[in-house]
Amino acid sequence: MSTTVIILAAGKGTRMRSKLPKVLQPLAGQPLLGHVIHTAKQLHAQNIITIYGHGGDLVKNSFQHEHIQWVEQAEQLGTGHAVQVTLPVLAQDGISLILYGDVPLVRQQTLEQLLAASSETGIGMITLTVDNPTGYGRIVRDNGKIQAIVEHKDASDEQRQIQEINTGIYCVSNAKLHEWLPKLSNNNAQGEYYLTDIVAMAVAEGLEIASIQPEQAFEVEGVNDRIQLAALEREFQAQQALELMRQGVTLTDPKRFDLRGNLKVGHDVRIDINVIIEGDCELGDGVEIGAGCVLKNTKIAAGTKVQPYSIFDGAIVGEDTQIGPFARLRPGAKLANEVHIGNFVEVKNTSIGLGSKANHFTYLGDAEVGAGSNIGAGTITCNYDGANKHKTMIGDAVFIGSNSSLVAPVKVGSGATVGAGSVITRDVAENALAFERAQQVEKANYQRPQKTKK
Amino acid sequence: MSTTVIILAAGKGTRMRSKLPKVLQPLAGQPLLGHVIHTAKQLHAQNIITIYGHGGDLVKNSFQHEHIQWVEQAEQLGTGHAVQVTLPVLAQDGISLILYGDVPLVRQQTLEQLLAASSETGIGMITLTVDNPTGYGRIVRDNGKIQAIVEHKDASDEQRQIQEINTGIYCVSNAKLHEWLPKLSNNNAQGEYYLTDIVAMAVAEGLEIASIQPEQAFEVEGVNDRIQLAALEREFQAQQALELMRQGVTLTDPKRFDLRGNLKVGHDVRIDINVIIEGDCELGDGVEIGAGCVLKNTKIAAGTKVQPYSIFDGAIVGEDTQIGPFARLRPGAKLANEVHIGNFVEVKNTSIGLGSKANHFTYLGDAEVGAGSNIGAGTITCNYDGANKHKTMIGDAVFIGSNSSLVAPVKVGSGATVGAGSVITRDVAENALAFERAQQVEKANYQRPQKTKK
Amino acid sequence: MSTTVIILAAGKGTRMRSKLPKVLQPLAGQPLLGHVIHTAKQLHAQNIITIYGHGGDLVKNSFQHEHIQWVEQAEQLGTGHAVQVTLPVLAQDGISLILYGDVPLVRQQTLEQLLAASSETGIGMITLTVDNPTGYGRIVRDNGKIQAIVEHKDASDEQRQIQEINTGIYCVSNAKLHEWLPKLSNNNAQGEYYLTDIVAMAVAEGLEIASIQPEQAFEVEGVNDRIQLAALEREFQAQQALELMRQGVTLTDPKRFDLRGNLKVGHDVRIDINVIIEGDCELGDGVEIGAGCVLKNTKIAAGTKVQPYSIFDGAIVGEDTQIGPFARLRPGAKLANEVHIGNFVEVKNTSIGLGSKANHFTYLGDAEVGAGSNIGAGTITCNYDGANKHKTMIGDAVFIGSNSSLVAPVKVGSGATVGAGSVITRDVAENALAFERAQQVEKANYQRPQKTKK
Repeated sequence: MSTTVIILAAGKGTRMRSKLPKVLQPLAGQPLLGHVIHTAKQLHAQNIITIYGHGGDLVKNSFQHEHIQWVEQAEQLGTGHAVQVTLPVLAQDGISLILYGDVPLVRQQTLEQLLAASSETGIGMITLTVDNPTGYGRIVRDNGKIQAIVEHKDASDEQRQIQEINTGIYCVSNAKLHEWLPKLSNNNAQGEYYLTDIVAMAVAEGLEIASIQPEQAFEVEGVNDRIQLAALEREFQAQQALELMRQGVTLTDPKRFDLRGNLKVGHDVRIDINVIIEGDCELGDGVEIGAGCVLKNTKIAAGTKVQPYSIFDGAIVGEDTQIGPFARLRPGAKLANEVHIGNFVEVKNTSIGLGSKANHFTYLGDAEVGAGSNIGAGTITCNYDGANKHKTMIGDAVFIGSNSSLVAPVKVGSGATVGAGSVITRDVAENALAFERAQQVEKANYQRPQKTKK
Repeated sequence: MSTTVIILAAGKGTRMRSKLPKVLQPLAGQPLLGHVIHTAKQLHAQNIITIYGHGGDLVKNSFQHEHIQWVEQAEQLGTGHAVQVTLPVLAQDGISLILYGDVPLVRQQTLEQLLAASSETGIGMITLTVDNPTGYGRIVRDNGKIQAIVEHKDASDEQRQIQEINTGIYCVSNAKLHEWLPKLSNNNAQGEYYLTDIVAMAVAEGLEIASIQPEQAFEVEGVNDRIQLAALEREFQAQQALELMRQGVTLTDPKRFDLRGNLKVGHDVRIDINVIIEGDCELGDGVEIGAGCVLKNTKIAAGTKVQPYSIFDGAIVGEDTQIGPFARLRPGAKLANEVHIGNFVEVKNTSIGLGSKANHFTYLGDAEVGAGSNIGAGTITCNYDGANKHKTMIGDAVFIGSNSSLVAPVKVGSGATVGAGSVITRDVAENALAFERAQQVEKANYQRPQKTKK
Repeated sequence: MSTTVIILAAGKGTRMRSKLPKVLQPLAGQPLLGHVIHTAKQLHAQNIITIYGHGGDLVKNSFQHEHIQWVEQAEQLGTGHAVQVTLPVLAQDGISLILYGDVPLVRQQTLEQLLAASSETGIGMITLTVDNPTGYGRIVRDNGKIQAIVEHKDASDEQRQIQEINTGIYCVSNAKLHEWLPKLSNNNAQGEYYLTDIVAMAVAEGLEIASIQPEQAFEVEGVNDRIQLAALEREFQAQQALELMRQGVTLTDPKRFDLRGNLKVGHDVRIDINVIIEGDCELGDGVEIGAGCVLKNTKIAAGTKVQPYSIFDGAIVGEDTQIGPFARLRPGAKLANEVHIGNFVEVKNTSIGLGSKANHFTYLGDAEVGAGSNIGAGTITCNYDGANKHKTMIGDAVFIGSNSSLVAPVKVGSGATVGAGSVITRDVAENALAFERAQQVEKANYQRPQKTKK
């Protein structure tokens, strides 16, 4: 049976107090709606229909690379109305899962269970049993079969004791949606069309309403304000941490770990406190990431040890390298094996060969460094002339003295040595010593400036 | 009716194991007593009387700018004795709230409720219902009316079941305090004068004792050791985080956020993990603060993005600037709009004009930089001659080459260019190129030093 | 009575998904087995016998400096078999505590209680009462006396209600071990020899089995996967934080503190969030450690304030110094009193005298700096010539101008001044001014490079 996923994403989210539409608020670096679309895609649905409204174009543009059918709900007249506006594009056969752009963490397995359960009767829903059901619609059952959903305010004292609540997530045959939705009425206190009413219609027709419960409550929790957003962010991070630990990663403190993207790991990876991983990252066997590091779109090969407070973005790092602390690798940094990058060193768009070292206060930008070279403390590649960027080529086994400035474009040949404090503006031949330096002058008994009286 | 606030702040706090008097221990950057005084002031009390004792002058001096009447309790003979010593300065009419310098987090609204409730009968108190009342004084009621406070050790088995406990916070008419306190006796095991005894006196006179409970237990929790101090610190931080999220701030992890002062925010401010805010700070619309940043007395305008591990103290930052990572803005840093301050850059007492950039390893101290200038990596303003500080003036559209030293006082005119590695000791004219450099020398086939055999 | 400690440490720990044997996985910087050995040593046991198997040599080599008797269990045939293999080396008299290399946090006091209780009857065990005993062996008692341990799968419905479980930690007279262990049978579903069976033997002999419970559950929790490892890590850290707070340390957030070694503290030490302490560290009276600092094998004297994100390894720091933020002190850094080390400064194998300052972007390696000297921003000691390290000697009251390079071996005499941007290759006399600088040249109306059209 073909499956459609319908996602309600038209709400404004007033309580977020934001200029951004609610479904675009990020959770773990991805918009709330993106999480739902991601899960929908895992279901291999034939079609994903997203209902947008507030902040419409912004919402659509944020997902322009996704195969999504967008349907506008110009006025927000209730959840039933939202699904109604999809009817012109909704297939007559098959079944539809109805999800919410602000309920981001429902799991694929849970939805597959719901699909399986619903296929038999044509309608199913996710319910949840909670300790405190106050405020939620209660699931009234008779002999185990769902009879009605009663809103809290309409519930009798007895019904209010019911702890099973409605989550709003349904799975309904398209034929029934086409039949039921046009019959919805807004004859209620809010003047809204409620999707919930299809349950009564199904019961009236004698249909049995399938139901399942999620493994964990957070799967069906929605985001209406920043407090709920933070709570779900932490739930999501906790889940990801558990999953990584199951894969064999040592997390020194799972509550101080943030993954905002995807992380592939080898065995015996160790991640210290407060590390943030963004985008797509990969850590090889035995990699150790020190406290407070931030990695984005970075690949680090086996055996590399990263000391605290190092920041990576778009870097590729070889095996058995030593990085940090306080190192910064920017996009295009490409380190071979056994490279050492020390404290207060910045590397951008630069490749560094086997075993080369830049241990202190160095800026390598738009450079190529060969193997076995040593870049002294305070070395700067002057890659920018105020208008254009130029390349610095450094060969193998080069020794660059401290506080040197390499004015690009410039080439230092293999085996060459550059004296400390030199500004190198012309190429240096292989094995040569180059320096730029005046005579050291000394004046005896120098009288230093005196403190001005104020 | 005029209100007096009486704060007991004479205790030593032996269990803190500190040289500092207990009421001066900081919570969220402010002394415990400071929190109580802050709340007392919000009540617009006519008078705040603080009873000091241990570490007396130190306590008084810490609040010398507050309008507080200080009364010394030379010997600590109990809570009743502490309030007794205020009688000579306590008005005959009006009502007094009795608070504690080591119970820092009681809320203004709670105290207003207590005042309102107590005004009617002349005496009221805050009680608290707890799961485990062991050790606390129990509130014995008859027909709902408070009959007595029974200390744990004096309580019958039945009374020990009572879960409502005495918090020690009272609100009493001054007339009654003048009447009751002189009658207190120290005829008990500890030989102390207990304030609690006034409850029995009130009951004996047939007065009804008003009572309220706080919204949250931490409001009436005291600090006797570092463990309790840490617990209240986290409670306080949690409350502040909730309040900011209600205002629309995104906190990636509310449990990893510390506000030690005041923070004003625009809409859609995002604060990543482990940020610390101190003093008075302000973040404009859409400002993003990266992980691990520390901000003190700093104002950042709309649209600015701060990358991780940047530290601000006394800085004013314009709109749409980019800061960090690993940037440090010190007092007097004043950045115009669209400025870029990159990694390992320190700015002190320096103004930087529209769109100017200092992206790597730079120290700008006591400088003025115009608009559209580019300060190369490794540039240092040599502002200190060993005795005095001098200014560096850099105009608009200036290009300072990398590793330059600008020896202040010095002026680089607008449109000027400074060659890399130069030490600039004389002013540079507008649009000129200035450099200080020797010839690059090269010696072929240089024999580098060899590793010494050890 | 002489005590032997027998530690079972032969397991593989498949669920850790690691190349490292389970008992070598670190918790708080020390292998799991190391924690157990540490506790065993505190008991002043006559002998510590450790049973190894998986990763054998690696396990043994990790503790080669400990006085441990190693017994190999070539095949892992159950806990009973493990203890059996110790019989050839186990004394005939005395008593043995049987512990586990993967149950790291059992406390000395708990084991002392067990020893005391067991000595009387010749056999005792630690049990634990838990909320959910599912899966664990239940302690069946009659009239308070232990009758049997029934495994979960063998337990009756009634027995499954029992909440007291077996922890596996026993204390048995050696005589009985020599008597009982050879009689163990592997006639069970797993085909293993279970140590548990000695309980039945003791009961059959009419011996009373002593039992105690630990103060806290984590003491008897084992590590089978990374999730349990992280959970115990946090429990251990929480305990250490409590202990430090009891000693009078202010921890801003006890949940964001990691101690991986030993910390000695004076009074009124303050430690901000996310600090990591490794190895043996010592903090004097009133020392303040800012957020995110990492200290390893470092001693900091009274009154010193460390700003955020400073990293110490093998440093000795005097009184009333100011360090950081973003400072890095490496092994051999030795700071006298009142020294200032500022942002982006690295100090290695260098002593710095009273009141000297290096406030910005400086690398001091293999140097000696006297008292009252000022090292300008960007100063680098060029201690490495590509082959050997050399020393830089800087006297008292020296002023080193910014961006200077001191090419070691070199000596700058007391009272000397070095001009900014100088490369100093020859010694500088006392009180002299030394500089290395070309003339500043200026070319008017310089035409800067233009942006290349692409």
